[in-house]
Amino acid sequence: MSALRFRNLSSLFLGPKGENAHFFENLLLEAFRDHVFWRRNFHPEDGFLVQEADRRRPEYEASQAVLSQELMSLLAELKAGVPFFSPRYIGHMTSDLTMASLIGYFATMLYNPNNVSADASPVTTRLELDVAAQLARMVGYPAERQWGHLTSGGTLANFESLWVARNIKYLPVAVHAAANEAGLRGLTVTLPSGRRADLQELDLWQLLNVEPGAALDLVDAFRARVGDGARAAQLIDRHSLAGLGSQEFGRVLAKDFGDALESAVVLVPSTAHYSWEKVCRALGVGGAQLVHVPVDSRFRMSADALQQRLESLAARRQPVLACVSVIGTTEESAVDRLDQVASVREWAGRELGLAFHLHADAAWGGYAAAITRAPDGRRHSYEEVVAGAAPEVWPEEGVYRALCALERTDSVTLDPHKLGYMPYPAGAICFRDKRVRELVSVDAPYVFHTGDNEGANIGRFILEGSKPGAAAAGVWMSHKVLPLDSEGYGRLITETAKGARALHRRLAGGDFLPFRLVLLPASDINIVCFAVGHPSLKTLEDNNAFVHRVYLAMSGSAKGAARRPDYYLTKTVLRRDQYGHAPDPLVQELGFTAQDYLRVGGLAVLRCTVMDPFLASPQGKVEHLKGFAETLRRVMESELRGEVS
Amino acid sequence: MSALRFRNLSSLFLGPKGENAHFFENLLLEAFRDHVFWRRNFHPEDGFLVQEADRRRPEYEASQAVLSQELMSLLAELKAGVPFFSPRYIGHMTSDLTMASLIGYFATMLYNPNNVSADASPVTTRLELDVAAQLARMVGYPAERQWGHLTSGGTLANFESLWVARNIKYLPVAVHAAANEAGLRGLTVTLPSGRRADLQELDLWQLLNVEPGAALDLVDAFRARVGDGARAAQLIDRHSLAGLGSQEFGRVLAKDFGDALESAVVLVPSTAHYSWEKVCRALGVGGAQLVHVPVDSRFRMSADALQQRLESLAARRQPVLACVSVIGTTEESAVDRLDQVASVREWAGRELGLAFHLHADAAWGGYAAAITRAPDGRRHSYEEVVAGAAPEVWPEEGVYRALCALERTDSVTLDPHKLGYMPYPAGAICFRDKRVRELVSVDAPYVFHTGDNEGANIGRFILEGSKPGAAAAGVWMSHKVLPLDSEGYGRLITETAKGARALHRRLAGGDFLPFRLVLLPASDINIVCFAVGHPSLKTLEDNNAFVHRVYLAMSGSAKGAARRPDYYLTKTVLRRDQYGHAPDPLVQELGFTAQDYLRVGGLAVLRCTVMDPFLASPQGKVEHLKGFAETLRRVMESELRGEVS
Repeated sequence: MSALRFRNLSSLFLGPKGENAHFFENLLLEAFRDHVFWRRNFHPEDGFLVQEADRRRPEYEASQAVLSQELMSLLAELKAGVPFFSPRYIGHMTSDLTMASLIGYFATMLYNPNNVSADASPVTTRLELDVAAQLARMVGYPAERQWGHLTSGGTLANFESLWVARNIKYLPVAVHAAANEAGLRGLTVTLPSGRRADLQELDLWQLLNVEPGAALDLVDAFRARVGDGARAAQLIDRHSLAGLGSQEFGRVLAKDFGDALESAVVLVPSTAHYSWEKVCRALGVGGAQLVHVPVDSRFRMSADALQQRLESLAARRQPVLACVSVIGTTEESAVDRLDQVASVREWAGRELGLAFHLHADAAWGGYAAAITRAPDGRRHSYEEVVAGAAPEVWPEEGVYRALCALERTDSVTLDPHKLGYMPYPAGAICFRDKRVRELVSVDAPYVFHTGDNEGANIGRFILEGSKPGAAAAGVWMSHKVLPLDSEGYGRLITETAKGARALHRRLAGGDFLPFRLVLLPASDINIVCFAVGHPSLKTLEDNNAFVHRVYLAMSGSAKGAARRPDYYLTKTVLRRDQYGHAPDPLVQELGFTAQDYLRVGGLAVLRCTVMDPFLASPQGKVEHLKGFAETLRRVMESELRGEVS
Repeated sequence: MSALRFRNLSSLFLGPKGENAHFFENLLLEAFRDHVFWRRNFHPEDGFLVQEADRRRPEYEASQAVLSQELMSLLAELKAGVPFFSPRYIGHMTSDLTMASLIGYFATMLYNPNNVSADASPVTTRLELDVAAQLARMVGYPAERQWGHLTSGGTLANFESLWVARNIKYLPVAVHAAANEAGLRGLTVTLPSGRRADLQELDLWQLLNVEPGAALDLVDAFRARVGDGARAAQLIDRHSLAGLGSQEFGRVLAKDFGDALESAVVLVPSTAHYSWEKVCRALGVGGAQLVHVPVDSRFRMSADALQQRLESLAARRQPVLACVSVIGTTEESAVDRLDQVASVREWAGRELGLAFHLHADAAWGGYAAAITRAPDGRRHSYEEVVAGAAPEVWPEEGVYRALCALERTDSVTLDPHKLGYMPYPAGAICFRDKRVRELVSVDAPYVFHTGDNEGANIGRFILEGSKPGAAAAGVWMSHKVLPLDSEGYGRLITETAKGARALHRRLAGGDFLPFRLVLLPASDINIVCFAVGHPSLKTLEDNNAFVHRVYLAMSGSAKGAARRPDYYLTKTVLRRDQYGHAPDPLVQELGFTAQDYLRVGGLAVLRCTVMDPFLASPQGKVEHLKGFAETLRRVMESELRGEVS
C-alpha cells in the first residue's frame, strides 16, 4: 500500500482534455460487458428472447435508428452546456467528477437497485450504510450510535435535520402527556443544568428545554416503564406534534399549560443557504421563525451575536428549536467557528437553561474535514495538517478547529456531489444518535417485512422513498479511491483550497488600474469573491450594473454571445437585509458609502469557485491564473465601453 | 415515419440475455467519445494537463490500479443483486430499463448539469420543462397554464402536492387579513356554489372552503388592487401559514375568528401509499388528520364512502385540506374511479359548500394514461383503446374513464422510474395551474439572477435544490423513442398489463390441489396478488407463516439459500386496520373466517408485479407462465414439508 499513499490526483479524473479517456473507456466496457454476461449466465437455458432474424426486421431496425438518431441530437444539444471540466470554468461548484464515482454509478445503474429497502437492493443498501458510517467516522460521531444515509441533495438533508429537531423539541411534552395518560409517575429527565428532575413537575418552558440526548433517554425510560414498545410508541404518538398535527398540538399546549409560549425559532447565520427558509416554511415552523444571526467581516456567524441572541430569547422565554452553523457558505465558502458556536450552546444550557438541536450545514465544506483525519483514523494536530503547506498555507487554525468541532453537533449535512466531486444526486445527512430515526418513521407493510435487519430498510426512516442504489455505489467507489482522510479527499481539497488562495493572491497583486478590484477576505475554503469598479462609474447602481455585465460576458448564460467566454465566473449580491454591515468596508474601498449601500440594498460581486486541484500548479501550456486576470481586464475594458466582448 | 409507427418493443431494451448489447455498446462508446472530443475541442491550445511521461509514473499507475481493482470488486458484489431484467423476476416494480433512458442518463452525467438553475444546466433545464409539458399534455392540463418538474421520486412529488394544497387551503385567510391590514375593501371571491361574495364578509368556514383556482384568482385580484406585486406578496406572506408558522397561525385564527375549527383532514383511500402518512407528519398536518376512506372489493376508493365522509365532515364543519385518489395502488395496482371521485368533489362543492385540492397519486399508474392519447394528441375513445385487444382485454372501461379523469385534478404525481421503465431518480409532479409556484417559492440570490426567464430556475419553486440534469435527459430520450401515446408508452404498458392478465388467468386455471390458491380480482394494471394455503394449515396464523416461507423461498432475500430461486415474487399483508372488510371473501375462500382475520389482523398474500411486456407472448425457449406455476407448486410442496427448496 505504501506506493499508494500519495495518490496521483490527475490520474483519478477524466481530465480537461480527456487525458484518461482510454483508461476510462476500458472500465466502461468492462463494467458493461460484465453486466451483460451476468444476464446471459442467469438461466442460460431460457435462450435468447430476440432472434437474429427478428433483429433484421424493418421495424426493429427502424426503432433502433430512432434511438441512435435521438442520441445524436441529444449529444449535439449537450454541447451547448457549460464546460465544468475545464480549469477555465471557475463559476459554480460544478467540476469534473472522479472517474470512480462515474464508473460506480454507471455500472450500478445497469442493475437498477432501489435503496428504499434491502429487498430491492441487497448490495447497494449495504454500500449506502457503509458510506454513511465513513462520513460519521470522519465527522467524529460514535460509531455504534450514529445513523446516516444519502439524500437527493443538501436541501433534503437539511430538511431531515430540522424535521428531527422539530419532533425532538416537542417530544418531552408528548411524553409528559403520555405518562399522564398511562398514569405513570416518577419518570425523571436530565435538565440542561445537569440536574435530574421529575418529568411531571416541569413547566412548559422546561419541557421545551431538554437536550436532544436527554429527550431520547426519556423515551427509553418511558418505554421501559410501559413494558410494551409498540404501546409506548402509540402513547407518545397520540400526543406528539407529528401525530396530532401542529394546529391540534398548539391547542392542547394552550389548554394544558395556559400559555403556549412564543413559537420556537431556528437560528442561522445571515449567510445561510436559502433552503433553510424553504424548509422552515414547509415544516410549518414558519419563515418568520427563521432568525438570522449577524456574521462578522469574515462572513462567519458571530459567536458574540449568537450569545446575545440566546440571552434575549431566554429572557422572553421563547424556545429555540435549533441552531444551524454553516461550514462553507454557498456564496463565500466561509466556515463558521463551529467550535465557538458549540461552546456557546454549552454555556446556554448551563447558564440559561436553554437546550436545542445543533446542526452543521456542511453541505459545501463537510468533505474538508478529511484533512483532520490520518489514514489510521486518529485526529491530526493542526501542525500536522499544515506541515509543508507553503507557499499557500491552508487552512487557518480557526477553520481546522471548526472542522474538528463537527463532532459536537447533533447532525451534519455534507454533500458528496459538492466537494466530493461526484455526480448528482448525492447529498448526505449524519445523525449523532440513531434513536432519532423513530421520530420520523412510519410503517410500510409491503416493503419492510424482513424484520431481522431493520436498519437495512432505509426508506422507513427518511423522507424519500425510491432512490438510486447507483448513487450509493458511486460514492462508495470514490471513497475507496480517495478515502476520507488527509491522504485521500483531504489532499484533493487542500490542493483545491490552495488554488483558491493563489487566485486570491493573484487578483490582490494584479494591476487592474484604472479599474478597482476589491477582494473579500481570503476564503475559508475555495471561493474567491470580489467587486470591480471604475472611477467613471459614479453611483453604486451603475457599479452593480457593470459587475452584472462583466458576469454576463464571462458566463455561459450570455445571451447572443457569438462565442464562449475564455473564462467563466459567476456573481452574487451581498444583500443588506441578509448581510447587514459586513460589506461596509468593501463598499468604501470601492469608493462608495455605507449610505449608498443602504439605499441600493446590495453589493454585486463576482464569484469564483475553484474546483480544479491543479489551478495553483499548472501542468499544461497555459498559466490559468494569469489568463484569467488578463481576460477579466479585457472584459472590463470592453464592458466599460459598452461593447460586446 | 410510417415504418416507425409500430415500434418493436424488444429493440428498445438491453434484453434479458443482453440481446441488444452490441447496439448499446456502440451507443455508449459514441456518447463517451463524443464527450471526450468535446473536451479536447474546448481551447485545444491549452494542451494536455497530463503528459505521457506522467502517466507512466508508478503512483499514477498505482492510483489507477486501485480504481480498476475496486471496480472489479464492485462488479463482483453487484452480482449478488436481484435479476430485475429477467422475465423470471416478477416481484417489485423494478425491471429492465429503456436503453434510451440509460444512454441519455449516462451521456448527460458526463456533462454534470445541475437542474437547480438554468445557469448550471442551460440544456437539461429545457429538457426537464419539455418533459413536464409532455406529461401535462398526456394528463390533459391546459398547456399554457400547467407547471411541473421532475423530483427524486413519488414521495417528494406527493409532498409537493400536499405542501401546495396546505398553503392554498389557508391562502384566503391570509388574503383576508392582508386586505384588512392594507385597508382594502370590496375584494370578491367565488364560492364553491358559484356565487361571488365579498371577502370581508366570509366566516372562517367559508374562507377555508374556496376552490384552489378561486383562491389563486383572489391573490391576482389582491395584487392588482395593491398595485405593487412585491408588496402584495409581502402582505400576504405576513399572514400566511408558511410565513407565520403553524403555531402562530393557529393562535391568530383563534383570536380573529373565535373558533379555529377542527384541523383540516386529508382524505386518502385505505390503500394509499405509506408516504402519505410520512408527508402529513412532516408538513405538520398531522398523522391523525390522515383519514382513510374505505375501498371496495376491487381495492378502489369507494365513491359512496367518500361522499358520506364529506357529508359528515361538512356537518361538523371540519375542513378538508385535500383528497388524494390513487391511480395504481402500490400493492394491487388498483385504479380508483377518479372520474367518480372528481364528480363527488363537484357535488360536494355544489351541495355542501366544501372545497378542497384534488390530487391524483398516479406514481404507479400515471404512464398508463398514454393509452388514451392518439399520436396526434386527441383522446382515444374506449372502443379505440381496446380494439383488437383479444385475447386479454385491457383496460376495463372504468380504468379508462379514471385515466381520462386525470385532467379534472389539481395535481398529479407520476413516476418515470416506475411504469416509465427509467432509472432512478425520476419522479414527477404536474400542477394544473402554475400560479401555485409562488406559494412555495423563496428567493435565492446567487443562483437566480437572470430575471428574464424565471421558469427556467426550477430550484426556486420546488423542495429540492441541486438535482441531476442527467435524469431529465434520460426521461426526455425515452419519451422520444416511446412517446406518451397509444403507440409509444401506451403500447408498452398494454402489453405489460396483458401479461398480468395472462398470469392471473394461468393461476386461476392452474391445478394446485391439494393447495388452495385464492386470487385477488384481476388487477387494474399489472399486479397479481394471491393467497395460498393447504388443508393441513389449520389457523390463519399458520397460513400466513406458510405464505411468508413461500415468499422467502422465491425472493432474493432468502437467507442461506444455496442458490437463486427460479422465479421471484414478493408479498404483502392486507392489514385489517387499513383494508377493513375488503379481504373477507378471500379469507373465506381460503377456509378461514372473518373472525380469524380480525384476530390475526391481516392476510398475507403473494404479490407479482409484471413488468415484462413479453410475458404473455413468450419468444424464448421457455413458457414462463407455466414455469412460474410449476415453481410455485414445487416451492409450496417443499415449504409445507418444512424443507429448504
